[in-house]
Amino acid sequence: MTTQQLVEQIRKKQSFLCIGLDVDLEKIPSFLLETEDPIFEFNKAIIDATHDLAVSYKPNIAFYEAHGVKGWVSLQKTIAYLNENYPEIYTIADAKRGDIGNTATMYAKAFFEDLQFDSVTVAPYMGKDSVEPFLEFKNKHTILLALTSNEGAFDFQTQSVDGKELYKVVLEKSQQWRNSENLMYVVGATKAEYFAEIRKIVPNSFLLVPGVGAQGGDLRAVCEYGMNESVGLLINSSRGIIYASNGIDFADKARFKAKELQNEMAAILKK
Amino acid sequence: MTTQQLVEQIRKKQSFLCIGLDVDLEKIPSFLLETEDPIFEFNKAIIDATHDLAVSYKPNIAFYEAHGVKGWVSLQKTIAYLNENYPEIYTIADAKRGDIGNTATMYAKAFFEDLQFDSVTVAPYMGKDSVEPFLEFKNKHTILLALTSNEGAFDFQTQSVDGKELYKVVLEKSQQWRNSENLMYVVGATKAEYFAEIRKIVPNSFLLVPGVGAQGGDLRAVCEYGMNESVGLLINSSRGIIYASNGIDFADKARFKAKELQNEMAAILKK
Repeated sequence: MTTQQLVEQIRKKQSFLCIGLDVDLEKIPSFLLETEDPIFEFNKAIIDATHDLAVSYKPNIAFYEAHGVKGWVSLQKTIAYLNENYPEIYTIADAKRGDIGNTATMYAKAFFEDLQFDSVTVAPYMGKDSVEPFLEFKNKHTILLALTSNEGAFDFQTQSVDGKELYKVVLEKSQQWRNSENLMYVVGATKAEYFAEIRKIVPNSFLLVPGVGAQGGDLRAVCEYGMNESVGLLINSSRGIIYASNGIDFADKARFKAKELQNEMAAILKK
Repeated sequence: MTTQQLVEQIRKKQSFLCIGLDVDLEKIPSFLLETEDPIFEFNKAIIDATHDLAVSYKPNIAFYEAHGVKGWVSLQKTIAYLNENYPEIYTIADAKRGDIGNTATMYAKAFFEDLQFDSVTVAPYMGKDSVEPFLEFKNKHTILLALTSNEGAFDFQTQSVDGKELYKVVLEKSQQWRNSENLMYVVGATKAEYFAEIRKIVPNSFLLVPGVGAQGGDLRAVCEYGMNESVGLLINSSRGIIYASNGIDFADKARFKAKELQNEMAAILKK
């Protein structure tokens, strides 16, 4: 999917909501555990109930890998279900991969070609030659970790590199890489005050913002500082939506929570 | 496996060789492509031919993931084959994962519990709370990226954070984390001169050293600066060994290349 197509979907749906599919067997309704593939059945129900309110879904790959081959099958079925039934949805493999040259190309093939995701999250620590292999894929995005929403973000990301925080150095340098127009960035919502400075460095890039909801960010503050003319934001919510209920009504409750966020987004977009 | 058991194996085999299983279907002998699981058949032959010369094997997870469910099955079969037939071997999942809290725990479970690897490589960018969940697993090691062997290492890792290179800050800070005795570090061999300084910060830690062989590092220089009283080094070679031949003799040729390295290691250990 192109950036332009994503923006069109956002305008059409009046939503820049991304729903994180972090499926934990200990948290989903117990009656699903009797089905053959509880993870896929859960995802299918969540997707069917919320697809008109969200522009994007983001399976967190760890939650699938933890179940080995079985988990990988659930992931394949989930992305195939999305691509077949809701091709307008922008899909993100939240994998946070990062390795050099030929290995990076292998990871890119895994997510862009084998699984047919629109984008994948990537870590910057190994530098340019660990990210450029991802950027070569046409109409695919690479979402680079810049500033994350966890406590550990202060260990290295906000450390000063010759007077400038490391995450800003990541933003600046990566903009010089080949095919950098295919970059988006992960920026945590728990630090809304940083968005103004981030927008000075990457005024046009899309930002994937986790940390609204369960991690405690504030949607309006993020939009005030982080939105650009093409919206430029994908706000992720995972647990706050998908685990709104663990009863028989889980999909309805997920829709209700997604609708609350989409309503807020529509109000912000109208201003 | 404990660090002590690893050191015993190194002394016994007179080898600190790790063989990287970066299995690329375009590079393995073509007759293997007719088998049901070419990746596993290749690994099995390489392992059978070299297990007495190496103390460790390191599947590069990207090369398996690129084949989806099929690749994941090959990975499962490979690690199960190692654990059943050569339990004295130290196994490394070269996955370079890195994510927060509960997601990190999921990745740790995937590699330590589901697949039963002895260790996994992890990226430091997200900080303490992305690494500590891995460190909680007893008799398992977390191998943190410090200084990698690629060109992109100079983009961020060697940048000065208040007068100190970022990779040194990673080494220092991580030593303060809970269960830091379960840490090892990835340090690229292409920069042997750095090993002396690294040993000032982590005198006792094991270092996993890629970049000897195909990437051009020098074994003796690395050992001169990097070895400690418990050896403290695992030297990885991937392509230089496993792709020594792509004919019917590929396993014999791999053994020959592994033996060359092991001979050098034995000579160094005797000094």
